[in-house]
Amino acid sequence: MRIFSPDVLRAYCKNVLTASGVEEGCAQAVADVLIDADLTGVSTHGVSRMSIYMQRMEAGLVARSSEIRILEEGPSTVAIDAGNTLGAPSAKFAMETCIRKARETGCCFATVRNSNHFGATAFYTKLAAEQGMIGFACTNLTGKIAPFGSCEPFMGTDPISVAVPSDGKPVVLDMTPSVVALGKLILAQKLGESIPLGWALDREGRPTTDPAEGRKGSLIPIGGPKGSGMAIMVEILSGVLSGAGYGPHLHDLYEFDAPQGVGHFMGAIDISRFLPLAEFKTAVSRMSAEIKGLRKAEGFTEILMPGELELDRAEVNREKGIGLSDPVYEELLELGRPYGLSL
Amino acid sequence: MRIFSPDVLRAYCKNVLTASGVEEGCAQAVADVLIDADLTGVSTHGVSRMSIYMQRMEAGLVARSSEIRILEEGPSTVAIDAGNTLGAPSAKFAMETCIRKARETGCCFATVRNSNHFGATAFYTKLAAEQGMIGFACTNLTGKIAPFGSCEPFMGTDPISVAVPSDGKPVVLDMTPSVVALGKLILAQKLGESIPLGWALDREGRPTTDPAEGRKGSLIPIGGPKGSGMAIMVEILSGVLSGAGYGPHLHDLYEFDAPQGVGHFMGAIDISRFLPLAEFKTAVSRMSAEIKGLRKAEGFTEILMPGELELDRAEVNREKGIGLSDPVYEELLELGRPYGLSL
Repeated sequence: MRIFSPDVLRAYCKNVLTASGVEEGCAQAVADVLIDADLTGVSTHGVSRMSIYMQRMEAGLVARSSEIRILEEGPSTVAIDAGNTLGAPSAKFAMETCIRKARETGCCFATVRNSNHFGATAFYTKLAAEQGMIGFACTNLTGKIAPFGSCEPFMGTDPISVAVPSDGKPVVLDMTPSVVALGKLILAQKLGESIPLGWALDREGRPTTDPAEGRKGSLIPIGGPKGSGMAIMVEILSGVLSGAGYGPHLHDLYEFDAPQGVGHFMGAIDISRFLPLAEFKTAVSRMSAEIKGLRKAEGFTEILMPGELELDRAEVNREKGIGLSDPVYEELLELGRPYGLSL
Repeated sequence: MRIFSPDVLRAYCKNVLTASGVEEGCAQAVADVLIDADLTGVSTHGVSRMSIYMQRMEAGLVARSSEIRILEEGPSTVAIDAGNTLGAPSAKFAMETCIRKARETGCCFATVRNSNHFGATAFYTKLAAEQGMIGFACTNLTGKIAPFGSCEPFMGTDPISVAVPSDGKPVVLDMTPSVVALGKLILAQKLGESIPLGWALDREGRPTTDPAEGRKGSLIPIGGPKGSGMAIMVEILSGVLSGAGYGPHLHDLYEFDAPQGVGHFMGAIDISRFLPLAEFKTAVSRMSAEIKGLRKAEGFTEILMPGELELDRAEVNREKGIGLSDPVYEELLELGRPYGLSL
């Protein structure tokens, strides 16, 4: 484990990307999104993704230049074609456009088609919360969740995020509609461990404790038809409304067959159109304090608000630095070597 | 069990309400919302609610006149004070305003404060879907769900609905973030049955199979912190952004201590701002057909899209009529008697 200052790591990622031919603005957005995930301790969505992004650009599956363009724009809507640009700059452009337009009309929603993996969804909704707005974002991914009643994967582990500001840290929900993410099955398989019933179904739709069988089968949605319905709605908003495509028609980040073709749906709502921002923030802080002050259930020492754990970790890591495992560090070094860059 | 034509039942409900002093538009909205729920087979939200609505008005806890007024209006937002008007007319006004304004700008979101029980959430999102829009709606209710990590109820079983049109029936998600609604515990207790682990916690936050203990404790959210976070977000959107109040500060529909004071949050997004409506509808129908054609899991004979069961039932019941149990029928008769109305 090696520790790096977030700024050093951010600059390195940006420099590697620009050296490989990525436009500066795009490189900055990717670096920002990845570092934010590492700061919050969500390292699965951090700089460990640099390698696959670089490989996909090298393979011609992701554009190095910014091909983002607006297809349709209304007073409170914008339909964007990412033109197979990296996911982070495409999604950041969409959310920034929503925030700008919401300032004018009170709210704005955006779709993005022909896009790519955009990192942690919470990054984008936090942008809105920082601007005194309520942020919404979701994206679709290749099919891993079986619709309720089926045993074939169809919807992705489509993340949904909502963020609102408070007097202190924002409240940030960022969740997938499956009980667990695919990564938990991959890890269990690697460690030779079984998984609890309720995480995955085998290919015949039977509950399984074998992570390998689960990976061949499908992930179980939370609350049965509820999580299933949520994932279907994300596929409709991110995949159909955007014109991107959905679930089984998308391509996996780790397969080199075609551009991913994923879509995003996001929006911003200006709080001050409903009540004074300061009043809203204080009320959210008061609610948080009430929730945190409730009696704890057996086995709990603290009640956490959505996103609190991640935001607390980010505060610590901004000072302490970001720890990289040796394999991730080696991988990053490897990426810079052709351009004479070192970390 | 007696069977009534939906039109006869709707007219009776409306006439009873107007006879008791409710404004005609409000009475019509309430009757429409209740009959729609009965048609879809969701009889817990149907005409069986007439009695409690009438009792609350009689007790002076709900206004008979329409006191709905707009507090703030922007190009794509509207903040509404229901002035303790019945929930259905307040929420219908909010959604109709959203639809009208979304036609101009592409989308519109509304909050409603000082409102009441508004029936089934799907009613309002379906209004948007019928107009070629994506409908969103949620409302808060008195606290029944404990935040993840706590054993004290705080958030209501706050329903969330999203509806989109297709070439055939709309796709309509309408769900609470708890594993089951409180009604299932009440029913189990009535029948002297135990409940499965995973539905409720007792007052100490321990899983319980005793419905009476569960009612004194709290309902379990779907997916642990996920459903908990969703309910917290609904409380923030419906309760804080609206200025209504949230969870433990609200009042129960079945207690006669104070106006409920609940809030709603809803919105409409104009699909045609993103892609031609016909194209969207056809794509949703194609996706539905793909999902319904997937292999079925063990124990399933059909894969249902969100809302499909309810919409199918409505189609049947529009022809066949709405069946009322004897107690509900007697209750309705009782409500009309003082005004010389009979069913």
